[in-house]
Amino acid sequence: MKKIIYLDNAATTYPKPQIVYDQMDYVNRYLAFNAGRGLYKGAKDAEEIIAETRELIAKLVNVNRSEYVILFPSATVALNVIINGLKWDKAFNVYVSPFEHNSVLRPLYKVSKKENIEIKELPFNKETFEWDIDKTKKLFEENKPDCVFITHISNVTGFILPVKEISTLAKQYEAKVILDAAQSMGLINLDLYEVNADFVVFAGHKNLYGPFGVGGFIANPKSFSIEALEPFVVGGTGSDSLNLEMPDSLPQRFEAGSPNIVAIAGLNAALKWISEKKGEMERKERELTQILVRELKDLEIELYLPSDLQNHIGIVSLNLDGYRADEVSYILDRRFNVATRAGFHCAAFVHRFLGTVERGGTVRISVGYFNNEDEIKYLVDCLKKIIAY
Amino acid sequence: MKKIIYLDNAATTYPKPQIVYDQMDYVNRYLAFNAGRGLYKGAKDAEEIIAETRELIAKLVNVNRSEYVILFPSATVALNVIINGLKWDKAFNVYVSPFEHNSVLRPLYKVSKKENIEIKELPFNKETFEWDIDKTKKLFEENKPDCVFITHISNVTGFILPVKEISTLAKQYEAKVILDAAQSMGLINLDLYEVNADFVVFAGHKNLYGPFGVGGFIANPKSFSIEALEPFVVGGTGSDSLNLEMPDSLPQRFEAGSPNIVAIAGLNAALKWISEKKGEMERKERELTQILVRELKDLEIELYLPSDLQNHIGIVSLNLDGYRADEVSYILDRRFNVATRAGFHCAAFVHRFLGTVERGGTVRISVGYFNNEDEIKYLVDCLKKIIAY
Repeated sequence: MKKIIYLDNAATTYPKPQIVYDQMDYVNRYLAFNAGRGLYKGAKDAEEIIAETRELIAKLVNVNRSEYVILFPSATVALNVIINGLKWDKAFNVYVSPFEHNSVLRPLYKVSKKENIEIKELPFNKETFEWDIDKTKKLFEENKPDCVFITHISNVTGFILPVKEISTLAKQYEAKVILDAAQSMGLINLDLYEVNADFVVFAGHKNLYGPFGVGGFIANPKSFSIEALEPFVVGGTGSDSLNLEMPDSLPQRFEAGSPNIVAIAGLNAALKWISEKKGEMERKERELTQILVRELKDLEIELYLPSDLQNHIGIVSLNLDGYRADEVSYILDRRFNVATRAGFHCAAFVHRFLGTVERGGTVRISVGYFNNEDEIKYLVDCLKKIIAY
Repeated sequence: MKKIIYLDNAATTYPKPQIVYDQMDYVNRYLAFNAGRGLYKGAKDAEEIIAETRELIAKLVNVNRSEYVILFPSATVALNVIINGLKWDKAFNVYVSPFEHNSVLRPLYKVSKKENIEIKELPFNKETFEWDIDKTKKLFEENKPDCVFITHISNVTGFILPVKEISTLAKQYEAKVILDAAQSMGLINLDLYEVNADFVVFAGHKNLYGPFGVGGFIANPKSFSIEALEPFVVGGTGSDSLNLEMPDSLPQRFEAGSPNIVAIAGLNAALKWISEKKGEMERKERELTQILVRELKDLEIELYLPSDLQNHIGIVSLNLDGYRADEVSYILDRRFNVATRAGFHCAAFVHRFLGTVERGGTVRISVGYFNNEDEIKYLVDCLKKIIAY
């Protein structure tokens, strides 16, 4: 099999650290029991892996109460749980950034058809990507924010949003803040209390370098109360089984069905691997991103970047004159064996913001920890050849 | 590590066929891309594994339209999607068997708090487990059934419910029939059209011998329409991304978020393994169950079995005089290294039916394809020792 140059790490990081594969294979063969549902040692061992994983996740965002880490099969399910579980019992103003993923926008839109909620976009400058704080203040004054959804890193542009600043303003109105950290957790520093989020949502299989099948949220222990969030996906919990309601305790209240111990064990290994890296992930990805941007800026192509490249990491969206996005991605794969992604990247609003609706979206290049400078340069050479063709 | 005698196969089958572990490890290392979201070969290969898995599942229940196979992270999510997605726009009578799992009962109860639905129990004889057809006819005459939930095999008693007979009667009232086949699919014959179900729900990690992380439902192609079921978990689908609604096409309409290709590939291998067995699973498990029941009947213990043992497979619940259920399970594990499960087994209604609420539920012994006669005899010897103690 010819080696692929993998530059679609924003879809899912690949490869994972070897220890993730090894641990998953081991747990699959010797420990894939139904955790929390049996008294025997295997089921208890599985339970312990899950408990430790919660602790590792909590620690990563500087939270010391691991029961506030709720595990789901994906970040998508976690966001559905939050968005459907919040009490929309009066008129609500919900603000979203233009960079949100459809795993935020589609559940919100679904809820908006039944409940009295109004979805508004936070203003950002289309040229510089700068957040317009003054316009936001005016908007908040006119329509007090009840709920603000912010993605930490845009999955289309690699733009790091000023989440702390937005959340600080939103908190002046006592708005709930939900941070979608699917692209950021593991990669850049994230302290739940510092960004003052009520919920931080993570995806195991992206920059946490775990596998598919596990994601979740961390609820802010200082602001969360069980009454504030209705369970959404309900079912067997292995506890309190005569009760038709979900148990009152955390994390059981929100986790229904058999836990995916194999995926969780993979995430467990990945989290330990990350914890030893201490900032190396960010340093390396910033470096690769800088090389990529510098080289691309020399080409005659359209780039969708923030002005301040300090607020940018890992992902570059681009378009080539005379090509649709998917054509470029197709040529990169078939002719040059480079995996990228083309299209709208499951983000409905950002293409109006970027002006890329008519182009069929963008070609997205996304780097990961296991990429190197040679691969970046190879990609740039390929793009040069396509342009020269 | 001392070898465990694993008799908790109703929680999850263990071990799986070697090919399942091997395929998962291979796909994890070489093919864990984001299926359906990239144009490159790896993403396309992942997509093909998923498409083939749908076909294998459809074939197993004699359906030839694989787009009606909707994949979720678990049977629990699949049931939540159905129960929340059905249009409860008028008063509805919902009937459930007393053997239903909490993954049916808890979502139904949750919906019943908001919608005008009335949950009633189908009458079964508490001594023989026989379905009371006459009483049911009377009930159906008084309160026309709109929806009937039937578990195919009880996860507490191993009782095989007369699903075809119940569904035939329910269909005279044009009720929707939802079959929970979590314990049955893969083990006993199941033809979606023969049982006339509108939805058949399956769990990948039980008698299909796949891993955690994948379950789903098969919608009846003859009765299903997209309008009849609202999407429940929504988000990115890798298609139609500018649309805030989920796509209109099947299976995309109901599947949000990155597919768990590793788990699906494991199920794929398991389904191929099963398809070569051609009835051997049922034959072997019936044999082991018969030996187990015969030996247990000689002991002075309480067994919770149907009178007609033709309608029984794989699972035996029991209690020992003078012991709580969890005490027996604990001793079996610690002293004899036998893994069983004690308690209510995530089934809220059946313990009232069996009279086991006060006993703390039951001790559940559940066999799988990889158990053998010696292990059954060893378990029975252990129980004898506990009784004699």
